[in-house]
Amino acid sequence: MDTTEPELAIALLHHPVLNKQGETIGSAVTNLDLHDISRAARTYGVKNYFVATPFEDQLELVREITDHWQNGHGATANPARKEALAMVKAVNGFETVIKEMRSRFNRRLLVVATSARQRPNQMSYEALKIHLNMNRSPVLLLFGTAHGLAPEIMEKADAVLPPIARHADYNHLSVRSAVSIILDRLLGDRDK
Amino acid sequence: MDTTEPELAIALLHHPVLNKQGETIGSAVTNLDLHDISRAARTYGVKNYFVATPFEDQLELVREITDHWQNGHGATANPARKEALAMVKAVNGFETVIKEMRSRFNRRLLVVATSARQRPNQMSYEALKIHLNMNRSPVLLLFGTAHGLAPEIMEKADAVLPPIARHADYNHLSVRSAVSIILDRLLGDRDK
Repeated sequence: MDTTEPELAIALLHHPVLNKQGETIGSAVTNLDLHDISRAARTYGVKNYFVATPFEDQLELVREITDHWQNGHGATANPARKEALAMVKAVNGFETVIKEMRSRFNRRLLVVATSARQRPNQMSYEALKIHLNMNRSPVLLLFGTAHGLAPEIMEKADAVLPPIARHADYNHLSVRSAVSIILDRLLGDRDK
Repeated sequence: MDTTEPELAIALLHHPVLNKQGETIGSAVTNLDLHDISRAARTYGVKNYFVATPFEDQLELVREITDHWQNGHGATANPARKEALAMVKAVNGFETVIKEMRSRFNRRLLVVATSARQRPNQMSYEALKIHLNMNRSPVLLLFGTAHGLAPEIMEKADAVLPPIARHADYNHLSVRSAVSIILDRLLGDRDK
């Protein structure tokens, strides 16, 4: 097995996502999505965490929060939080994420979406784990806020992961829980 | 294999827990700990989620939040959230959790603590999973807020799970992430 570290980036999209009625909307940034997800990403060795929103005031909010923890009082009060939030990058949309990833790696990129529902074009957790461990190409994992990624994003992905709770009668995890569980399935050092 | 459903309950303790300096404190209740953890618990079929704090104003806060989602506007606006938060039970401490569990099951109870650090008396995820699948006895999983469970609680547990990220140089997951990942490891319907 190749010992190169897996190249995995994650992106949290606030647009285009779906609302409860299935309409395409832009959602608001949630403070704890920045904290919880960057802490999980840092724990599992994810290098890049993109937070995408087309709204300038929301981009500014992300920058203010991350700045507080990089340079403000938060940086000295909580160095572990500083380290986690250092990886958050605010961008204005999916296309910018792709552009940034291409300029960083200059290699073919595997874009994998996530969904709480069964979708065509699934790639199993095990297959993606092997892809990462063999470092076949950098992987970008997409997460949607609100009721999930809009169809136009799903169509741009190379594959989609199966729902986390395939057989459950209830599947309403927060995106923070979903990211944590998926990173553990893909990169976790599982106790046997 | 026994097909009885695993009997797993979780408790989130706000006292006695440790602060950054390792002193025993009582921490404040966080709204999203109620939401995210109850949603994860409901998804994985956990039956009981105890939120323990000795402070009357904090107990009142937990009751107000859960009541809003049971009987207030939240109940009609978001039935999925209603269903998740229905399992939250506010209690005044660890001993009350034990008492409630004993009165519910009237069987020997396995109390398993969690920790971000290596501890003596570990039980592997695999061993606990087998215990649950065979329904050997009901299991109570303990989670601490702030910097983790105080020694007096660790001592009362029958065993402790290994840290989630055993070999990571950074292990600062939110308790919301930790609960989600541990439930997935123990009860998840993993895609092979």
